[in-house]
Amino acid sequence: MTNTTGKIFKVTTFGSSHGKALGTIIDGCPANFELNEKDIQIELDKRRPGTSNLTTSRNELDKVEILSGIFKGKTDGTPITAIVFNKDKSSKDYEYLENKPRPSHGDFSWISKYGNYDYYGGGRGSGRTTIGIVIAGAIAKKILALYNIKVFSHITQIGDIKAKKIDINLIEEYSKKNNLKCADIEVAKLMEEKILKLKEEGNSIGGVVETIAIGVPTGLGEPVFGRLDGEIAKALMNIGSVKGVEIGYGFKITELTGHEANDEFYISESGVKTRNNKSGGILGGISNGMPIITRIAVKPTPSISTIQKTVDLKKMEDVEIKIKGRHDPCICPRITTVTESSLAIVLLDFMLKGGFIPMHNLNMQ
Amino acid sequence: MTNTTGKIFKVTTFGSSHGKALGTIIDGCPANFELNEKDIQIELDKRRPGTSNLTTSRNELDKVEILSGIFKGKTDGTPITAIVFNKDKSSKDYEYLENKPRPSHGDFSWISKYGNYDYYGGGRGSGRTTIGIVIAGAIAKKILALYNIKVFSHITQIGDIKAKKIDINLIEEYSKKNNLKCADIEVAKLMEEKILKLKEEGNSIGGVVETIAIGVPTGLGEPVFGRLDGEIAKALMNIGSVKGVEIGYGFKITELTGHEANDEFYISESGVKTRNNKSGGILGGISNGMPIITRIAVKPTPSISTIQKTVDLKKMEDVEIKIKGRHDPCICPRITTVTESSLAIVLLDFMLKGGFIPMHNLNMQ
Amino acid sequence: MTNTTGKIFKVTTFGSSHGKALGTIIDGCPANFELNEKDIQIELDKRRPGTSNLTTSRNELDKVEILSGIFKGKTDGTPITAIVFNKDKSSKDYEYLENKPRPSHGDFSWISKYGNYDYYGGGRGSGRTTIGIVIAGAIAKKILALYNIKVFSHITQIGDIKAKKIDINLIEEYSKKNNLKCADIEVAKLMEEKILKLKEEGNSIGGVVETIAIGVPTGLGEPVFGRLDGEIAKALMNIGSVKGVEIGYGFKITELTGHEANDEFYISESGVKTRNNKSGGILGGISNGMPIITRIAVKPTPSISTIQKTVDLKKMEDVEIKIKGRHDPCICPRITTVTESSLAIVLLDFMLKGGFIPMHNLNMQ
Amino acid sequence: MTNTTGKIFKVTTFGSSHGKALGTIIDGCPANFELNEKDIQIELDKRRPGTSNLTTSRNELDKVEILSGIFKGKTDGTPITAIVFNKDKSSKDYEYLENKPRPSHGDFSWISKYGNYDYYGGGRGSGRTTIGIVIAGAIAKKILALYNIKVFSHITQIGDIKAKKIDINLIEEYSKKNNLKCADIEVAKLMEEKILKLKEEGNSIGGVVETIAIGVPTGLGEPVFGRLDGEIAKALMNIGSVKGVEIGYGFKITELTGHEANDEFYISESGVKTRNNKSGGILGGISNGMPIITRIAVKPTPSISTIQKTVDLKKMEDVEIKIKGRHDPCICPRITTVTESSLAIVLLDFMLKGGFIPMHNLNMQ
Repeated sequence: MTNTTGKIFKVTTFGSSHGKALGTIIDGCPANFELNEKDIQIELDKRRPGTSNLTTSRNELDKVEILSGIFKGKTDGTPITAIVFNKDKSSKDYEYLENKPRPSHGDFSWISKYGNYDYYGGGRGSGRTTIGIVIAGAIAKKILALYNIKVFSHITQIGDIKAKKIDINLIEEYSKKNNLKCADIEVAKLMEEKILKLKEEGNSIGGVVETIAIGVPTGLGEPVFGRLDGEIAKALMNIGSVKGVEIGYGFKITELTGHEANDEFYISESGVKTRNNKSGGILGGISNGMPIITRIAVKPTPSISTIQKTVDLKKMEDVEIKIKGRHDPCICPRITTVTESSLAIVLLDFMLKGGFIPMHNLNMQ
Repeated sequence: MTNTTGKIFKVTTFGSSHGKALGTIIDGCPANFELNEKDIQIELDKRRPGTSNLTTSRNELDKVEILSGIFKGKTDGTPITAIVFNKDKSSKDYEYLENKPRPSHGDFSWISKYGNYDYYGGGRGSGRTTIGIVIAGAIAKKILALYNIKVFSHITQIGDIKAKKIDINLIEEYSKKNNLKCADIEVAKLMEEKILKLKEEGNSIGGVVETIAIGVPTGLGEPVFGRLDGEIAKALMNIGSVKGVEIGYGFKITELTGHEANDEFYISESGVKTRNNKSGGILGGISNGMPIITRIAVKPTPSISTIQKTVDLKKMEDVEIKIKGRHDPCICPRITTVTESSLAIVLLDFMLKGGFIPMHNLNMQ
Repeated sequence: MTNTTGKIFKVTTFGSSHGKALGTIIDGCPANFELNEKDIQIELDKRRPGTSNLTTSRNELDKVEILSGIFKGKTDGTPITAIVFNKDKSSKDYEYLENKPRPSHGDFSWISKYGNYDYYGGGRGSGRTTIGIVIAGAIAKKILALYNIKVFSHITQIGDIKAKKIDINLIEEYSKKNNLKCADIEVAKLMEEKILKLKEEGNSIGGVVETIAIGVPTGLGEPVFGRLDGEIAKALMNIGSVKGVEIGYGFKITELTGHEANDEFYISESGVKTRNNKSGGILGGISNGMPIITRIAVKPTPSISTIQKTVDLKKMEDVEIKIKGRHDPCICPRITTVTESSLAIVLLDFMLKGGFIPMHNLNMQ
Repeated sequence: MTNTTGKIFKVTTFGSSHGKALGTIIDGCPANFELNEKDIQIELDKRRPGTSNLTTSRNELDKVEILSGIFKGKTDGTPITAIVFNKDKSSKDYEYLENKPRPSHGDFSWISKYGNYDYYGGGRGSGRTTIGIVIAGAIAKKILALYNIKVFSHITQIGDIKAKKIDINLIEEYSKKNNLKCADIEVAKLMEEKILKLKEEGNSIGGVVETIAIGVPTGLGEPVFGRLDGEIAKALMNIGSVKGVEIGYGFKITELTGHEANDEFYISESGVKTRNNKSGGILGGISNGMPIITRIAVKPTPSISTIQKTVDLKKMEDVEIKIKGRHDPCICPRITTVTESSLAIVLLDFMLKGGFIPMHNLNMQ
């Protein structure tokens, strides 16, 4: 397995859905930044289940505890370890799944690869393990904010219902006005209705989440194999249930001519800018100072309560299963905290790599 | 910069559009495989410019020379170095571009980041640098083929013209029937016409390329940050001009319910399979034995010959440029060799990582 | 900072001398091995302070707790997290050290580099942080033992008192017969006396520790920059207080001619062997099937209780300090558990890298 | 294999003793530094064989050619590729060695591991492959010099003949006064005589090389697994024929008490210093501003011309061989260029990692 991401701000996550604890070690957080548990708890509370009728009913407080890396209220350059204990586990709900992989879940692939597979609540493959990412993301976002970089996200599509385009400067504010995190307030209601209807039917639905970073300086990205767009694509695709990633205009750009697609430069008061941003803030794999625009395709939650066909891997015969347990009918609302975290982690790593944020106590050197 | 990719089959590429030479070092190619220059030349010839009226007229033979890593006709585990000398350079064509970044090219980002920027033909950011990837891809494809893994690609869309769905077993054969590499032979003609028309106008167009791998065993991928889908997304997004990546159903899956999207398992003669493959062969970040299906969004070539607005970075004033030089009106046909190479490199790396292909002379151990 | 070591068996340690907890995450432990807390506790108990009059009087039980990575008594391939809480801290003993670096300690370098420096008991630079290495080493040793590889160590020198050469097959047994871990039982008494005398004087002493691995197969090591001897040298030099590393004959070999130094090969019943082993089991950076022999130079504990000259970094003036707190007069005995752990971690990593131990459930593939 | 070293200044070397070419790719050389082939040739000429009667008679000009990475006379941040073609090969001299590993050479280990083994002149395991290191070292030394860091080396021991201690400020100058690179001019003559006598007898001898860096700032090194001493130990032990590494007082420190060994701090005109430097410039794994002092144990050249016992790996029987070919009777003089290069590469990497040398064009950001 590969449970570490990042080159300088190296994030390692651990833990499973029903294990003793989940958490994160960050090796490479720059020293001398104020940090406490509250900074992390704020973000964890956003992804916490049970906060609306759109999410699973599993009730977890997800209270974070920092074990190392802080000295007298500030980071000291040593590894930051933060953990969350699992409380509301009901492992027996999952016992019937031994050897019976759930359709479109990772069960079959994991058991094939690793043999001894923790099938309680999806084990290490559970969405619950994104707690580790959100912990690191909270820290990344806090540091980025000190450098005037803001990362936010909103839902632009649920099923075939699409939000209308919202001014980039209003997205963050508007998207906080509903449980769904959709900045198009009218359409959000239709989306909520759709999700709740499918929830009742024991079904689920997918959607599109747009995650944006503003204030990113020109110069982040390491061509040709460590490009900013490549690392973002990887970070977002690594989130469970994501089946597509776009930067800027994404797939829509394939229908344009060069003349229509090109972002022309001009001199603005604050330096070189482009009038449009169909490139989504990245050219040649390096940020160009414009907002970074990303979108992901989120598949419908594969845990649905209707009877499904699968196999018994021990008896090697076809069987049927009915998935029990508690699940989100649409993971888009809760995934937004994860996409923001993932993007923030990538950006902070590049800010450090590029020398935009100092790692050390340069005064004393 | 980061010019190396891969963890075991580590590929480092070098060289620029108008430099002395371009090439690749592969550190971590398993020993004892037969390999010669012809194996590589075949693939280089596919991406070579000047082979049809759909490509740039730059005329390069791109003859490869192996400098190290082969002993008595076989790989010996030491680094394989292979180079191609640049012949048909016309650097003076680009002198006017100093300090004037071309719209939607990497020029501005690169010069901002690195200062000393090779603006001849796009320098290291040129599509020509994919020669390094194709060299490594040729070797990866040869080794994968010995393990019954086949990688191929085809064009499914040019501008708004979409190819119809072709049986997966016919794609490779059909796509060879035209210069465009489109398996839908009827529609391919319309696409060619569109490209040639835009070429005449000095304009360009984007498209969609699907790249597929069949024969991939269950078990490739390293959750949670080294997942197979994450690595593929990164590898494909790292290719110049790519603005979106999809696995399986990609963005289309967002409109489905869980009931519609889930891939149910069954026992086939050759083991566990899924009836559909909307997941594109990857579940939980690990291959599940089904074909790996990927698609990329390719933007229109930003080098167009109409007058465009840009800036003079030295004088810091708005200017206009007219791009000279020789360019592909649509890079989709030639990018196919690159996507195949990129996917093959990722897959071989995971085959080695997973122990499916031995690195060493295990008999003697 | 870089708190991770290893390429496949990736060990990350965290925590400081007086922080909440210390511990380890292992990402890349192969699945399907039995493992419990007792396996780790046995090794932690060996390095635990307060077990004889040769060590510091700090009293820590160092009880380990596994937080993740085990499912139904076996490793499941997911990250193993294990922690130890600090109990017997007396931080106020160290308050006087703020801004006054102890001679030959890391204080000055750390505060210069990181600014915010945890000066309680040496912070992250404390010998106490080797708990993280010993946790990982315990796991590595357990798995290696299943493959008939045994790692052990003994003290060969304290100050200028040198142990006589002991038969390699008797070292492990003999070295257990005294607190000092010296296989030369006679000389061990003299060494103990010397240490206790210096302890009384508030002084300290250095020594040499030899660490050996037997049963290592031919073929571990990755020339030219990932050689087995290079990785061992790094792992051992990374242990605090180590100022020299030798493989095989080490510095003694410089006085020999090629004729005297060369290890000639012969055919034994169990394959190719060398009659001598002046190379210490490594040729060309790769193990050759003979025992791996390493030695380290351990400096005298820099914490001594006599008055020493240093500087006040805030006032920038010369000052004197008298180090309080509890310290080992000679760290050689306790360092042995750490050298064994470090060597075991390196060897396991190479066993996995070389395909000698499978990572995954190859039967199901 | 692992043919890359470094985290930021990433050096990959390739090529074998009798292959077409040897060389280096450097990925991560900072942009905007003047660099040309002469800068590299100067260093290559130092390690070149055939320059005195103390070296092998193989006659190679080792003329370097830069293939990429320089634009208009300066580095541009893209990979620097530099190669040297092999000219004076006599591969047939080595044909008799197929399947007969030379004692204390890597042949046996390599063939066991890789199977297909290039036994011509030691293949990739040859000392000739240090050309790749020297190329990168030349660049590293040039950049370090701009930051007032100087790296030099000298021989302190040949066989049992030891040089007397020379003032650190005179070593570089004095060591240039003889072919042997020994700063003790008297003793150097005895050393030369010894080497020439053993050469006549077809025998060889080992020695000790001290490599020093002055001007290194406080703050290089990444505890706990990327410490400066750990990385230096690895880099030096990775050089063929090295069996021991020391920092500062090395093994001699084991005989001292804490009181004798500790380096006390004081305030000098140029900041905090230590009166002694028994620590060799590194405390807690981080440089402390004092000169970095390293020493290596070099074994006698294993290629000697007397008859030796070995095995035939194909027939699996004991045989005798007499090594032909051209060899250095003592590799200490020529290894000095390699140790300097290795140390310079490590230091430059840490200078970049620590932000002491900027990677990019920070003005434009």
